[in-house]
Amino acid sequence: MTNALWSLPHHDGSASYVPEPTPELGGSATVLLRVPRASDVTKAWVRVNMDGEPELREAVVDRQDENDTWLRAELPVVNPVVSYRFLLDGGPYGYQWLNGAGLHGRDVPDAADFRLTTFDKPPAWATGTMYQIFPDRFAKSVDRPAPAWAEPAAWDDPVVGEGPGTPRQWYGGDLDGITAHLDHLESLGVGTIYLTPFFPAESNHRYNASTFSRVDPLLGGDEAFARLADAAHARGMRLMGDLTTNHCGDTHEWFQAAIADPRAPEREFFFFSDWPETYACWWGLREMPIFDHRSMELRRRFYDGPDSVVASWLRRGLDAWRIDVANMTGIHGEINLSHEVATTIRRTMAGVVGTDSFLQAESNHDASRDLLGDGYQGTMNYAAFTRPLWQWLLPPQPFPYAHAKYPALPNLPGGPVVAAMQELSGMTPWMGTVHAMNLIGSHDTHRIVSLLDRNAGLVDVAFGMLAAYPGVPMLYAGDEIGLDAMGPEYARIPMPWAHPERWDMRRLAHTRALFGARADSEALQRGGLRWVNVADDALTFLREAPGESVLVHAARAPHAPVRVPASVVGSSLTGLAGTPDLAVDADGWVTLPADGPAFGLWRCG
Amino acid sequence: MTNALWSLPHHDGSASYVPEPTPELGGSATVLLRVPRASDVTKAWVRVNMDGEPELREAVVDRQDENDTWLRAELPVVNPVVSYRFLLDGGPYGYQWLNGAGLHGRDVPDAADFRLTTFDKPPAWATGTMYQIFPDRFAKSVDRPAPAWAEPAAWDDPVVGEGPGTPRQWYGGDLDGITAHLDHLESLGVGTIYLTPFFPAESNHRYNASTFSRVDPLLGGDEAFARLADAAHARGMRLMGDLTTNHCGDTHEWFQAAIADPRAPEREFFFFSDWPETYACWWGLREMPIFDHRSMELRRRFYDGPDSVVASWLRRGLDAWRIDVANMTGIHGEINLSHEVATTIRRTMAGVVGTDSFLQAESNHDASRDLLGDGYQGTMNYAAFTRPLWQWLLPPQPFPYAHAKYPALPNLPGGPVVAAMQELSGMTPWMGTVHAMNLIGSHDTHRIVSLLDRNAGLVDVAFGMLAAYPGVPMLYAGDEIGLDAMGPEYARIPMPWAHPERWDMRRLAHTRALFGARADSEALQRGGLRWVNVADDALTFLREAPGESVLVHAARAPHAPVRVPASVVGSSLTGLAGTPDLAVDADGWVTLPADGPAFGLWRCG
Repeated sequence: MTNALWSLPHHDGSASYVPEPTPELGGSATVLLRVPRASDVTKAWVRVNMDGEPELREAVVDRQDENDTWLRAELPVVNPVVSYRFLLDGGPYGYQWLNGAGLHGRDVPDAADFRLTTFDKPPAWATGTMYQIFPDRFAKSVDRPAPAWAEPAAWDDPVVGEGPGTPRQWYGGDLDGITAHLDHLESLGVGTIYLTPFFPAESNHRYNASTFSRVDPLLGGDEAFARLADAAHARGMRLMGDLTTNHCGDTHEWFQAAIADPRAPEREFFFFSDWPETYACWWGLREMPIFDHRSMELRRRFYDGPDSVVASWLRRGLDAWRIDVANMTGIHGEINLSHEVATTIRRTMAGVVGTDSFLQAESNHDASRDLLGDGYQGTMNYAAFTRPLWQWLLPPQPFPYAHAKYPALPNLPGGPVVAAMQELSGMTPWMGTVHAMNLIGSHDTHRIVSLLDRNAGLVDVAFGMLAAYPGVPMLYAGDEIGLDAMGPEYARIPMPWAHPERWDMRRLAHTRALFGARADSEALQRGGLRWVNVADDALTFLREAPGESVLVHAARAPHAPVRVPASVVGSSLTGLAGTPDLAVDADGWVTLPADGPAFGLWRCG
Repeated sequence: MTNALWSLPHHDGSASYVPEPTPELGGSATVLLRVPRASDVTKAWVRVNMDGEPELREAVVDRQDENDTWLRAELPVVNPVVSYRFLLDGGPYGYQWLNGAGLHGRDVPDAADFRLTTFDKPPAWATGTMYQIFPDRFAKSVDRPAPAWAEPAAWDDPVVGEGPGTPRQWYGGDLDGITAHLDHLESLGVGTIYLTPFFPAESNHRYNASTFSRVDPLLGGDEAFARLADAAHARGMRLMGDLTTNHCGDTHEWFQAAIADPRAPEREFFFFSDWPETYACWWGLREMPIFDHRSMELRRRFYDGPDSVVASWLRRGLDAWRIDVANMTGIHGEINLSHEVATTIRRTMAGVVGTDSFLQAESNHDASRDLLGDGYQGTMNYAAFTRPLWQWLLPPQPFPYAHAKYPALPNLPGGPVVAAMQELSGMTPWMGTVHAMNLIGSHDTHRIVSLLDRNAGLVDVAFGMLAAYPGVPMLYAGDEIGLDAMGPEYARIPMPWAHPERWDMRRLAHTRALFGARADSEALQRGGLRWVNVADDALTFLREAPGESVLVHAARAPHAPVRVPASVVGSSLTGLAGTPDLAVDADGWVTLPADGPAFGLWRCG
């Protein structure tokens, strides 16, 4: 990783480089390469795969301006996934490849090739900021009697964060509670509300559903869901549900039918090795039997076609699905129906609402195999965003430092952090990167404030990166007011609506400003990503859309000043989200703030 | 890339690290990690994917010796492909991942994970040295009348290397000619004879077959094939055929039937967009119609089941198939049956001879998607061996330097060359690497002597690397006597049996010594690969099997002396293939020769 990254040739899948990102099969697609005048590149070819065979085509000059030469090539769209990369002269050894992971002065595998696909692209609203709500903990509209499985808690009680009581602790948040607080979401620039499961289940997290056919009465039932959907839609917000296609609860009506009668049609929905006693389950948890997706009847009821669970909730007001444990769904021993499950869900969704729906996958790891766009359209981006960012911001840790499944999450300087982000993002098409759910915390993590040792400046940087890095930012309810807890389940804190004194009002104002700025910016929502400078303690990049560029500067510590030519970042830098404006120096360069931790956003003019 | 690579932790798929490389589904597999005392690593975990979810398991000490600690972990074999990598402490930032591409001080994608599979492994003979014969140009047993399509040439005539006469120039080499020269092959330590196509076709290359049911009478027909197979087997050699599953000739009996009658069953074997005039063909060449693998009848006749072409030739004496244009086979527009074709061919072969057969793929590029081992078991290794090696040895070229499809093949120093080899190899399971067809030249390339400007020392290095690098070395007939020509088709020179004055007898003796040494060495055939030192001009590595280690040192130019502790490479270094022995210095280190171009092989004791 060197500095002066702005002088390197660049391509990504954004509109400046790929005017039509989802071309027609049998047609062609135009791709553009930006070659800064400061680079040593004079010639380029595009290598495109056709029916499995790569071919080189020379790129021609499209246009030139005072800063850049733009080269253009036409790609024949022979297959549904068009895989390509650029071969350039120049670089340390006279040639270099440019692919989704960057520049390489030697031969590289195909895995990080740029990719276009002929699959439907997600709707425009899909890039709107998400807000994750764990319904039991967000807001309560009414008191209800506790069910048998629950251990009721008062709203201000401390969270039971470990042990058998954890899933049973029931605060009684409900959907009308959410509806009552949509003003709060709107103030944050939220575009999509992501609800963790709302189906009846014998736990507060509801990932062990008893049915997929109705909303838990404890949440207010189907009527409350309809009220929430209507109210959200009236404000232009969208609603994303959370579906466990990998497993259900052992209380699920399908599982109960399966164990009640050996001839039940539902028996084939599960893997019984010794009916009804022994069956495959998730991580060995008997209360979560996994589904056998070879069953066509399961598919029909669950996600294949207009009568399925997946389809019916779209008709009832959902706009998107997040698929829980998508990385495991459909995989069991020799059976791997992962791709078939994903593409069937996607097809079913398209059958109900055409392209106006959005399909997200849960994955904690490299999900690139699932993100070509014919099935899942994005993933929870722990791999290419969250973990590298945490590693940059976390204080140095003694080894081993335990987080979730990782015994080690040590602090890294900017170079390897950006290399990891680039390499992991490079494995998915740009459409997958720009539609990935970026997050700095979720119901499965510590609270970001706690993770960063309550260092407000570092938390500012985390929020800033969440708002400004390519992807769909997901705010975890309560992070915007600075809720604080270590331990993923300790961190499922009820929103303290009645206790404004517990709210970090500076955090809230900053979050509103950041995500408000994002909601107003095409560049921040869908623009390309061009790195400007990467140092141990400071990361600088541009988000660029046709007609709009935003400069982003994130520093985890004070650092040597970063200077960039005004020809690259513009001569009028207007601060966004509370960032002061920047002036151009007498020599025509711009000097970025050198303090830290600090975060800045500027619209380039 | 640093030096002292011998001090780094290491794992690969060879027997020292993976005692049972093809475990049973549902069982477990032991993997070992070598941690040299000189490294800073004290702890390791293995990350293994199970049903799509990674899990970490701590490795325990298996044993220690004066040089190394060996850590051991058990991998549950939950799926047919077991994907794993190691997490280690130490490294520049306190943690590092070790995968098939090496060590990484940051998070990495899964694509280069180590992999074990439950699929049949290739037979032991599959690692024997291959010898590629283009039958028209190897040896002639008898004069035959020329067919109508041919332009007959006398054996000593110059090759027509370009233009319409190129495929028609017919020298009349035949299979009995090969049988007559098996002594020559045996003297080279050849294990497998690779014949380019022997089916009747209207060209000298025969990649446009007229039938797959018999041997071209111009080659001596089925009887000559039986004689060759018997004679080869009697010497313990194996025979590999070359099958064009992607396309055939327009003279092929199936294609002729397809265009003769619109109701012919063969019509569905091809893609007619406007029968019989317009059909899909390979690179637009009308004489090579491509196959539509959706046809079950095509599959049955061609490669699915005991009555297929693929099966019948195994019964008639073939031991292996090389699939031509495997990278394109089965792919056409929206149709991608690539994996299905490969696994069906493999299953058919196993149905005839169980595990005693070998399936190779042609690919010029990254073939990792095809090399999990359930279909193709190896690939022509242009990507991870040939091109990086050429780039290291080729003299610096003016840009652009045209070779085959590459406008650029510039000279690179050792670091990026080894990085490319590691990264590209890392995309395939070790079984794929050790069964890849390595080559320094083929019927599709320039002659290696010409490519390296007749620099005998550099050619020595190329042959040495061919013999010593992991994979199945393929000698292209005539390279062993120094045949010389630029232009792939100019290079298809008849073997000058009658002109010993044209033979480079030093090259022949050197080649015999090298491949004789390989035939005697378990380490060179199947041993692991541990890099010892990588410099701009010198590459040093160990091939290690239980009980045998071979040190390999290749230099393209004189270089600073490379020194290695005797504890790493042994205190008795016995030269192989003409290499002088090496002594240990007084300080307990070994100083490798610093001259170049030069190549050395030593057995470590």
